[in-house]
Amino acid sequence: MLNTFPSPISAILDQRAEGHSLPAALYTQEDVFRADLDVFFRKHWIYVGLECDVPEAGDASVIDIGTTSLILLRDDAEHIRVLHNVCRHRGTRFLDEGQTVISKLVCPYHQWTYELSGELIHAPHMGKDFDTACHNLKPVHFKSIGGLIYVCLSDKPPTDVALLERVMEQRLAPYDIRNTKIAFQKDVIEDGNWKLTMENNRECYHCAANHPELCVSFIDLDFGFDPETLSDEDRAEAEDHMRQYAERTSAWEADGFPSSAVEQLAGNETNFRTQRLIIAGAGESQTPDATAASSKLMGTMTRKDLGDTHLWGHNCWNHFMGDHAVTAIVIPLSANKTLVRTKWLVHKDAVEGVDYDLDKLTDVWIATTDQDAELVARSQRGVEDPAYEPGPYSRFTESQLDNFATWYVERMRAHGY
Amino acid sequence: MLNTFPSPISAILDQRAEGHSLPAALYTQEDVFRADLDVFFRKHWIYVGLECDVPEAGDASVIDIGTTSLILLRDDAEHIRVLHNVCRHRGTRFLDEGQTVISKLVCPYHQWTYELSGELIHAPHMGKDFDTACHNLKPVHFKSIGGLIYVCLSDKPPTDVALLERVMEQRLAPYDIRNTKIAFQKDVIEDGNWKLTMENNRECYHCAANHPELCVSFIDLDFGFDPETLSDEDRAEAEDHMRQYAERTSAWEADGFPSSAVEQLAGNETNFRTQRLIIAGAGESQTPDATAASSKLMGTMTRKDLGDTHLWGHNCWNHFMGDHAVTAIVIPLSANKTLVRTKWLVHKDAVEGVDYDLDKLTDVWIATTDQDAELVARSQRGVEDPAYEPGPYSRFTESQLDNFATWYVERMRAHGY
Amino acid sequence: MLNTFPSPISAILDQRAEGHSLPAALYTQEDVFRADLDVFFRKHWIYVGLECDVPEAGDASVIDIGTTSLILLRDDAEHIRVLHNVCRHRGTRFLDEGQTVISKLVCPYHQWTYELSGELIHAPHMGKDFDTACHNLKPVHFKSIGGLIYVCLSDKPPTDVALLERVMEQRLAPYDIRNTKIAFQKDVIEDGNWKLTMENNRECYHCAANHPELCVSFIDLDFGFDPETLSDEDRAEAEDHMRQYAERTSAWEADGFPSSAVEQLAGNETNFRTQRLIIAGAGESQTPDATAASSKLMGTMTRKDLGDTHLWGHNCWNHFMGDHAVTAIVIPLSANKTLVRTKWLVHKDAVEGVDYDLDKLTDVWIATTDQDAELVARSQRGVEDPAYEPGPYSRFTESQLDNFATWYVERMRAHGY
Repeated sequence: MLNTFPSPISAILDQRAEGHSLPAALYTQEDVFRADLDVFFRKHWIYVGLECDVPEAGDASVIDIGTTSLILLRDDAEHIRVLHNVCRHRGTRFLDEGQTVISKLVCPYHQWTYELSGELIHAPHMGKDFDTACHNLKPVHFKSIGGLIYVCLSDKPPTDVALLERVMEQRLAPYDIRNTKIAFQKDVIEDGNWKLTMENNRECYHCAANHPELCVSFIDLDFGFDPETLSDEDRAEAEDHMRQYAERTSAWEADGFPSSAVEQLAGNETNFRTQRLIIAGAGESQTPDATAASSKLMGTMTRKDLGDTHLWGHNCWNHFMGDHAVTAIVIPLSANKTLVRTKWLVHKDAVEGVDYDLDKLTDVWIATTDQDAELVARSQRGVEDPAYEPGPYSRFTESQLDNFATWYVERMRAHGY
Repeated sequence: MLNTFPSPISAILDQRAEGHSLPAALYTQEDVFRADLDVFFRKHWIYVGLECDVPEAGDASVIDIGTTSLILLRDDAEHIRVLHNVCRHRGTRFLDEGQTVISKLVCPYHQWTYELSGELIHAPHMGKDFDTACHNLKPVHFKSIGGLIYVCLSDKPPTDVALLERVMEQRLAPYDIRNTKIAFQKDVIEDGNWKLTMENNRECYHCAANHPELCVSFIDLDFGFDPETLSDEDRAEAEDHMRQYAERTSAWEADGFPSSAVEQLAGNETNFRTQRLIIAGAGESQTPDATAASSKLMGTMTRKDLGDTHLWGHNCWNHFMGDHAVTAIVIPLSANKTLVRTKWLVHKDAVEGVDYDLDKLTDVWIATTDQDAELVARSQRGVEDPAYEPGPYSRFTESQLDNFATWYVERMRAHGY
Repeated sequence: MLNTFPSPISAILDQRAEGHSLPAALYTQEDVFRADLDVFFRKHWIYVGLECDVPEAGDASVIDIGTTSLILLRDDAEHIRVLHNVCRHRGTRFLDEGQTVISKLVCPYHQWTYELSGELIHAPHMGKDFDTACHNLKPVHFKSIGGLIYVCLSDKPPTDVALLERVMEQRLAPYDIRNTKIAFQKDVIEDGNWKLTMENNRECYHCAANHPELCVSFIDLDFGFDPETLSDEDRAEAEDHMRQYAERTSAWEADGFPSSAVEQLAGNETNFRTQRLIIAGAGESQTPDATAASSKLMGTMTRKDLGDTHLWGHNCWNHFMGDHAVTAIVIPLSANKTLVRTKWLVHKDAVEGVDYDLDKLTDVWIATTDQDAELVARSQRGVEDPAYEPGPYSRFTESQLDNFATWYVERMRAHGY
């Protein structure tokens, strides 16, 4: 922000009241949307894809984030690369969004040709004195954290991603996400601001009434409850559940599976949370009956009873289970449109129809995401209403949203708003 | 307007020349559109629906005005209520636009539950100390004027609505609009600014060439003519028509039916006009042959020869006749899109196919509205053309438009533009 | 520009580096788009149609340029007229885009009626004292240059159009474009800024890889090559081609057909280039096999070997050949949408199926335009990417683009940006 006067966005941020949802303008204004894209999707680490999106040399996957287009690819040496999808000549897109296989990057306009490393090797008619070395494709900062690809589009990526790397490399190791395959992928466009999408995901206060399929395996109590207003029966159940957590976490950790919650939230640059959660009912997987969807377990897993290692980031949620993983990437499209891209991962050698049934694998999160899209759309229309005023978060069930809103304002401030 | 510098809109208003159509920017700019929504659709009384939209306890009708969404409902005591369609928790919409039946207002997101009065009666997980009384739904200022629902979204509704109330309660009494039913409703989106929609409605200069169906029952001379440029024959007809008005108005008023024109236009806050108009031809109703469409007359009416009590507001037009009424609500959607919602009312006990034929009832105004939509769209494209300059209104046939434009500028000025 | 502070657009223009494509904002920002429309489509001469669009008295052709709508018509005296498509009353559009036949211009709203000269002859109900003479339709500056209609929407049209007139009247005379007919017309909307459309047309660097159909008759070497990086074989071919140009140009000019390049580019107001180009292969016409598509030659032409008289303007390209002509008009629709309207002209007496085959006539440029639309769309998405930075033009093959960009910045500066 070059401007020495307070920006209008700054004045909106001033209005944020602790314990309350955000002022409407932060969910609705186009200038805030552009600031959000800049701050949260360029200057922070974002999750954009997986190593298994490009399993073989020459595989490329194009991912659009706002008007930025990235090529995630595996080069001839089988190394992951992330390059800008923009020719250095007159800016033409090389590849359309989606998956493809390439040997070089050839611009369709004038045939400028680059190695998969980004090196410019051919630029016809540019003269003998033309320095191709100055026109290589610019690389993008990226990290593969246990097989999950994070990028940062700024020159100064936050360094506190280190904790995320350390924790998740260890926790994801037994799942060997690098050697999974994408059994299914689905894009849903939610008619709401990306922060409503994230808030929706940060609480399970809405689950009981809205997610019958998810509630077979997911326990809404995990993310808080108000003990004093529960019935005696419900309170007893809730307290029993908390006891189970203590027991199961100890047992899992004794077996060498880190399970306790790790949170790096407000007060930090990189926002994440992970914990090994109990799966309800049959206890194996987020499927319609909570039993495993894939008989071929993930990585080196030999047990189905290791719960759900969940991982949150500011643009993702993930559930790593014994038999499969569900991973969702959130990409804002406009102030009131957000892409949620969900992928279902299984062991790379698992065979559909033999080792797993695709419907059983995907039913729960397809239903849940559609239900959430409807809720987010209803919320967006509400916050656009002049009658909306920020309402109180439950300190029991919505503390994660309050923390997210606090982090959001902090990060905007840190970047000059 | 907090800004102490003149707004750009103010400079545009300065350009308005008396007797001429408005400067183009007032029909086309997005900032003017937003100002219009704020001034004319939040700070003035607007017509939004009818008591008969919600005939029974528990009936609810959701009406969207810009990004504002209102719930018009009839509570358990059969009283009309108008509430904001926004949950006090995180702002979610309760209900979609249209009609429904409810016993409580339950937010689909987290089940916050309100009485039809707006009282919050259930907010799970908010803690024992949570004060529900501070989170009731906020009521909206409204009035039922003879069964027509007017709302004002500001805290200081104009008080000069009193004349509208007094005049129309009396004039509408025999039609008993509260005890009608909506035989048909149709939404048309006109591709033009709402002020072009209103201007189109405030003159019948365009009727002869564009509205063959309406001209059977409607007399374009009612809203002025240029006596000097008429042929001798046409002038004789026009003068005869004026004589008829004097006679019929006297006769109707002698029978106890107020008929003279009442106008509260420029110079006032609340803009309306009413008069009992002569119906042409068979003289009964605005139908293809000018005879009544419904054999069951409205309210306590026993005569079909009481003409057309028309009522204009700045976002509506209405025609109350012996056998039925036609009522149109105008809601701006964007600088160049406007919703016209037309409802046809008959006696609540009238039975379709027995007492009235739906086609006969609706043909004239369906045709007329479609024709007007075409004219408004052509006008919008014209005023968007840099070659447009405000043109002269006819002082004979377009004086109501001139008055409307004057009132428009006055009201913008009064609200700080 | 009334503002005494530098406009943001001015700062963007400052960033333009010689020899490089334009800064992204000039291709993407809405304010730049509006400035472009104002500067390049209102204050310069633009090509909008042809005399043969309106071959007979009463023929009218409506052309929209941004929100401006023009009526090109032939009046009762068979003179060409260009009028604004906006009634002087309340601004209504008379006619929809496209072709029609009229005897008067009658506004559909209130029947104000104008002669084809623009004279207002009837304005009902406006009073005896109404001065119709003050409300004639305003004429638009236009010129027919060899049958091509150029308009300028400003009050001070650039005078250096004189060279274009003088050169092209002479060069087009043998083709007698005034006595052609439009055998086919096709609109393509390209998903890119109009300057990308023009840049695409100003080089044939991209032809070999993208335009197989065009390359049968069109020679990409015409617009430059890098001699040092060509293979020996290609360089010999290129040098031979340059020799042919010297010979053919001399021979054509000796026969009375002006052929040398005439350029009025950067440094001038009106931007154009013309030259008689060699047609490759069979040498006759831009058809799939380079032979003439029409056996009835244009105008007074008796030879098919007179090449391709190309004409560029800042919103057009044209190819005049012995048997037919192809002419393209470029009209910006938004910052990232551009209309390309292509017309194929043949002798007015040529009969489809007898004298010419429509597919043969149109195949090359239909394919070429579709291919260019794809390239322009890919470029637009690229320049919208924050990773785009202006890239180097080839000084051999893209010098015309560099000149166009220089002219663009000059003209913006000249108009206060």
